[in-house]
Amino acid sequence: MPVTIETIREAQERISPYSLRTPCLRLNSLDEFLGCQVYVKAECMQITGAFKLRGALNKLLSLPREQLQGGVVAASSGNHGRAVAYGAKLLGASAAIVMPRTAPGIKIDGIRSLGAEVVLCDVSQRFRVAEELCRERNAAMVPPFNDPAVMAGQGTAGIELVEQCPPLDMVVVPVSGGSLLGGVSAAVKALSPETRVFGAEPEALPRYSASLSAGGPVTVERHATVADALASDTPGSLCFPLVQKHADGVVPVDDAFTLRGMKLLLLEGKLLAEPSSCIGIGAVLQGRLPVSPGMKVCFLISGGNVGLDQLDLLK
Amino acid sequence: MPVTIETIREAQERISPYSLRTPCLRLNSLDEFLGCQVYVKAECMQITGAFKLRGALNKLLSLPREQLQGGVVAASSGNHGRAVAYGAKLLGASAAIVMPRTAPGIKIDGIRSLGAEVVLCDVSQRFRVAEELCRERNAAMVPPFNDPAVMAGQGTAGIELVEQCPPLDMVVVPVSGGSLLGGVSAAVKALSPETRVFGAEPEALPRYSASLSAGGPVTVERHATVADALASDTPGSLCFPLVQKHADGVVPVDDAFTLRGMKLLLLEGKLLAEPSSCIGIGAVLQGRLPVSPGMKVCFLISGGNVGLDQLDLLK
Repeated sequence: MPVTIETIREAQERISPYSLRTPCLRLNSLDEFLGCQVYVKAECMQITGAFKLRGALNKLLSLPREQLQGGVVAASSGNHGRAVAYGAKLLGASAAIVMPRTAPGIKIDGIRSLGAEVVLCDVSQRFRVAEELCRERNAAMVPPFNDPAVMAGQGTAGIELVEQCPPLDMVVVPVSGGSLLGGVSAAVKALSPETRVFGAEPEALPRYSASLSAGGPVTVERHATVADALASDTPGSLCFPLVQKHADGVVPVDDAFTLRGMKLLLLEGKLLAEPSSCIGIGAVLQGRLPVSPGMKVCFLISGGNVGLDQLDLLK
Repeated sequence: MPVTIETIREAQERISPYSLRTPCLRLNSLDEFLGCQVYVKAECMQITGAFKLRGALNKLLSLPREQLQGGVVAASSGNHGRAVAYGAKLLGASAAIVMPRTAPGIKIDGIRSLGAEVVLCDVSQRFRVAEELCRERNAAMVPPFNDPAVMAGQGTAGIELVEQCPPLDMVVVPVSGGSLLGGVSAAVKALSPETRVFGAEPEALPRYSASLSAGGPVTVERHATVADALASDTPGSLCFPLVQKHADGVVPVDDAFTLRGMKLLLLEGKLLAEPSSCIGIGAVLQGRLPVSPGMKVCFLISGGNVGLDQLDLLK
């Protein structure tokens, strides 16, 4: 099933009773720092603290009810897991979330507080461990990306930001596996073809920059990044063609600029977002995106699940 | 000149080209913590980071141009000073801001970065020092409160929040001298008489609780409070009657609850605000306000000028 504006609209209808239409804010205070007119789509204010709720809910609500009886399983760096835990609770299903040992404590706690089981493992093993659990328990898998229902769900943020903002010159989206960028770029290009849509990814894990150059999905060497929610080493095989078709490019961003973006968003914009969410602002600070003073640019702030201890990174 | 909905509307017309209509946000994530439907008027996103710009601009724009030639002077715990510095720069006047030595560094820096002179003194001496400076320089004084133009300016936030929110059951406003509460309650009661308007003040400086009980302005003993922007020990003589007439009450709040409110607003609401701005949320957390689950309550988040070092208070 391809991801199109129609499947994204269907997703919107399916999830809207259970998710928020998050605000789109004009942050004038950031204009002079970024050299453009700054808008943010505040998915950090989404229920469960991240856009991931959109895709997880669309997937869960698309599953036949009997498939939920064995519970659901998800592999996640944190935000998808919390979204799945929330959706499972809503539907009365049990949930097990497989997370990297390196996930921030606040993300692990957030998932446990929703009644889900947390299984910790090495970051590279999380998909294998999740698949085993699924088989053992006869549970339904809710993939974090690379699933048409998940991708269409994430795309609903794209419909909203086009409706909420004045005509935009550019939208900037954090990238990991590529569901968010794939879904949002498909939605934005259908509704506002003249708006350019860019992805931003950690320079330490340039899976999309490398794959777009190579013309097909490439796996990059795994390196640590402060953008803990952008942990994929490979584009999703279903996400990649969507990104390739609709997005105008993906730029790599140094962690230092991502953190500078987070500090700027917090102290000048007054919004708390996790490092991964600020990578688009970091891309502009690093001079990686073609912005100019008259341009209206919307940054998708993907999540806000960050602990006070992590704010020490900004000092 | 009395402060009425008409003078507040005139202020709105005067200042709107130079100030922001800040967003009013529905923060669903705070509902379960506060036991009501939570809205915030995000004056932390105002230019200069606080509502104070409204009153300062209305005053400055009301002065005859020739009065600006000797420059302007203001006594301030920080936010009013930054607003006056901004307005003076806009109008091409010089500005001197008299601040308590105890003001947070971020507030002092913010004022200096706008080109104003900062004069530090003991908190209890700031009005005397400012008056002397005014005389010496033949400068115009821009009072932080207790001035009809300043009070009408602050009231413009009240017009906006009534227009932006659905019909509200309650509005909660931080109180120091009382310009904001006076102006906002005058505006809200004129436009939405059934909405209750409460003030919240530090338990360490209960000048309004004491004065409302006494039936007239009372000076309280000076004690330290984490709410550094709420430093007055006496209600403004012009503010008091306005508050007495329009507000439904003022409640004292313990600093510990104000900080808990700040932490909640940051980590769950994803908004950065200074301690003083979170005192209304603290009032609800302390059980000082009559809220209930169906009620729509708007908290006026008065400012966001807070440094990273101050976030250590929340750990």
